Amino acid sequence: MSQTIDLSPFRAVLDERGVVTDRDDITPWLTDWRGRYHGDAAAILAPATTEQVAAVVGIAAQHGIPLVPQGGNTSMVGGATPPADGRALILSLRRMNRIRSIDADANLALCEAGVILANLHDAAQAANRRFPLSLGAKGSATIGGLVSTNAGGTQVLRHGTMRGLVAGLEAVLPDGSIYDGLAALKKDNRGYDIRHLLIGAEGTLGVVTAATLRLAPAMTSTLTAWVGVARPHEALHLLHRLEAQLGPVVEGFEILTEAGLKNVLAHIPDLRSPLNAPAPWHVLVEIDSSGDPDGTASALENTLAVEVANGSVLDATLAQNEAQAQAFWRIRESLSASEKALGPALQFDVSVPVARMPDFIIDTGRQVEATFPGVHASAYGHLGDGNVHFHVRAPDGTTDGSAWTSEFGKPISQFIHDAVVAAGGSISAEHGIGQMKRAELGRLSSPARLAALRAIKSALDPLGIMNPEKLIPLASEA
Amino acid sequence: MSQTIDLSPFRAVLDERGVVTDRDDITPWLTDWRGRYHGDAAAILAPATTEQVAAVVGIAAQHGIPLVPQGGNTSMVGGATPPADGRALILSLRRMNRIRSIDADANLALCEAGVILANLHDAAQAANRRFPLSLGAKGSATIGGLVSTNAGGTQVLRHGTMRGLVAGLEAVLPDGSIYDGLAALKKDNRGYDIRHLLIGAEGTLGVVTAATLRLAPAMTSTLTAWVGVARPHEALHLLHRLEAQLGPVVEGFEILTEAGLKNVLAHIPDLRSPLNAPAPWHVLVEIDSSGDPDGTASALENTLAVEVANGSVLDATLAQNEAQAQAFWRIRESLSASEKALGPALQFDVSVPVARMPDFIIDTGRQVEATFPGVHASAYGHLGDGNVHFHVRAPDGTTDGSAWTSEFGKPISQFIHDAVVAAGGSISAEHGIGQMKRAELGRLSSPARLAALRAIKSALDPLGIMNPEKLIPLASEA
Repeated sequence: MSQTIDLSPFRAVLDERGVVTDRDDITPWLTDWRGRYHGDAAAILAPATTEQVAAVVGIAAQHGIPLVPQGGNTSMVGGATPPADGRALILSLRRMNRIRSIDADANLALCEAGVILANLHDAAQAANRRFPLSLGAKGSATIGGLVSTNAGGTQVLRHGTMRGLVAGLEAVLPDGSIYDGLAALKKDNRGYDIRHLLIGAEGTLGVVTAATLRLAPAMTSTLTAWVGVARPHEALHLLHRLEAQLGPVVEGFEILTEAGLKNVLAHIPDLRSPLNAPAPWHVLVEIDSSGDPDGTASALENTLAVEVANGSVLDATLAQNEAQAQAFWRIRESLSASEKALGPALQFDVSVPVARMPDFIIDTGRQVEATFPGVHASAYGHLGDGNVHFHVRAPDGTTDGSAWTSEFGKPISQFIHDAVVAAGGSISAEHGIGQMKRAELGRLSSPARLAALRAIKSALDPLGIMNPEKLIPLASEA
Repeated sequence: MSQTIDLSPFRAVLDERGVVTDRDDITPWLTDWRGRYHGDAAAILAPATTEQVAAVVGIAAQHGIPLVPQGGNTSMVGGATPPADGRALILSLRRMNRIRSIDADANLALCEAGVILANLHDAAQAANRRFPLSLGAKGSATIGGLVSTNAGGTQVLRHGTMRGLVAGLEAVLPDGSIYDGLAALKKDNRGYDIRHLLIGAEGTLGVVTAATLRLAPAMTSTLTAWVGVARPHEALHLLHRLEAQLGPVVEGFEILTEAGLKNVLAHIPDLRSPLNAPAPWHVLVEIDSSGDPDGTASALENTLAVEVANGSVLDATLAQNEAQAQAFWRIRESLSASEKALGPALQFDVSVPVARMPDFIIDTGRQVEATFPGVHASAYGHLGDGNVHFHVRAPDGTTDGSAWTSEFGKPISQFIHDAVVAAGGSISAEHGIGQMKRAELGRLSSPARLAALRAIKSALDPLGIMNPEKLIPLASEA
């Protein structure tokens, strides 16, 4: 039920392609990609320049029309789906898809918000560099969305999240003014950091229109290892030993269980277990050996040998060639899909301090299984980031997944989130809050933090026009 | 002229040492350490715990009494000096001087705000780690002040400013509530980043009470080189080559002029020029070779040889021992003091994008000398950070320095700051805004940025009690 919104002021500042009202063109963008959230909007506004974005936001502010910024529309938490009542318009950044410049010497790329991640990867590679952040949706996710959700991925261990990769930012603020912070200044102490405020703000404080991003040297040589250990504790110990012995070259450090591995092997053809014997937990390690291929290889082998000798590592093997390394990674990348085949499950994107993660995995798994009889807890992922994919699967034989989710989704979520908070962690490690976790953010934030978040939102978007009903649980809605 | 402020509510929540009213004890803290700013305050409040800080701020909010947070009182911009009218109290964090914990495996140290930087250096060293940020005032500067001013130093090139080293933060917000963000979460997407908002806020949004700080591995082996080049452009080229060939191990990269070197040699005994022949510009390079001492040394020698062969480097020499390396650094560290002997000068703490710095140094130097006849422009410092100490010295023979400063201080400052802004730079690279640059921040900020800064200040400190008359030029004062 789209509301009647006068689009003529927007038509006056945008070209013909800039105002999309055809229902067939709009419909795909009214639902999130996982099909969980549905909204409505009378039009998609698609400006082609920063100045046009500023004009659009200025008009929206003047008329009190909310805007929902959209990039690739691959939010995991409904962060880019418009409200159901149709009072908002979608502001698509997809046309702003230029990589304005790449400075290989300075290791910087200046990208507009609509640049698709995979295209930046290609452009960086052509300059003998790389943009060290990747994720499953790289073929659709845009720079603006990645910045606004402070995206993560498997390379965070070494390179940090998007927050660490944004050297400069351009945005249109909720009053239609342009914030130009694109210059990459390594030292800049001129007051509150607007850039960091906009990163991860999910479009609720303004619209990111461009970013200056840090590049890393290309990797010319990597080492991939598969390691079996008894517990996540020994995996974390191994990570510390590798960092101490090899330096900051650990590019990936992913853990999974024997059950997870077996399940992948049962569902995905042509894969085999990298180790000869089973191990309770497995670790996939990737090392950047570009700086010193031989030295790094022998340091890796020595470290693994020492840890095998002292019993901390049960077994370890190095990929002998690129094909074997890819096969190791295929196991990791198949975990999510092959788990789905086991039945309905709740998935949690949570983080705790790295040192507490091994206990969290074991203890919270046991506790949720004891509290909700029949469920299966499992965890895999980025141990070195203090961030695992924590799943709670419905009891065996559950046929009606949505009935189970209706009954147990909320209590199990609250149980897990309470455990996360007790461990000093975050209920959203990577995906953000969006619509999905807004109530939980309200329930679990300290009053001090919640008051600060609300004060910032009201101060910078007093009209409440930027991505309504997302991220901050407003006091007026309580 | 201290105003009459009822201290009894503060006495009720603090112990005897927590309320200092003896004038002799207060006086040293009413003036900044360079003697440029003078204020007044009826008392210094010195809480011993975070809870006491919260109680003090709560009382201040209730009674509308402004607070000026102080650490080591070594602000370069009058950022910790109370207002002259005595309406504010000083809130000293010096008693909160515990290093609560060091986790060597996780490379984290949890420090209270009053910990002195040099003490953290010692504690980290005892754990076979280092805290990779240092500056001249390390014997007095405190963690709270370093966080609140986003301090820099000579190691920013590799390790970043304080912003990059703060993994978690605890603060008391202006309403007296405690923000507990000490947990070091590598991934945390729960809304606006309060931590980054408080870093560099100069105490105007709340009082930093503790921080979780990142440590780096101890350096077990370093290489120090002295290089002569024709221009800053060739110095920057050399930096890029070193980073490409050696990886991220460049710990220091400082430039100076032949004139600067000669001046040091004239004023400081027992130092000699590292190179046999003069060179227009000099570079002091320090490399961390701990990971691979021999490999890094030969890579450094090869890179320098290639650049000498292609003419980009005029001459280069490696320190042959620790004493020689220290002598190289003594030259760098003596620049400021030996320049002072030449006569009165204006000093600018500015940054521009790294790639633009060579042109900025040359062009702005020429322009200011042309515009203000007789003055001498010079620059030295952290080229790789896009941040140099840019000095403009009074014409030869100027005897009355303060008369010269009175006449030329403002126009020359505005001239330099305008050039910085034109180059996309920052009028405060390291020292912050404090009282000194507040008017210039107002003059040179875009309306969008200024409005955002003011909105944030009013939202989080609606009563205006946190470090009044600092950082943000308020609209009400315009």
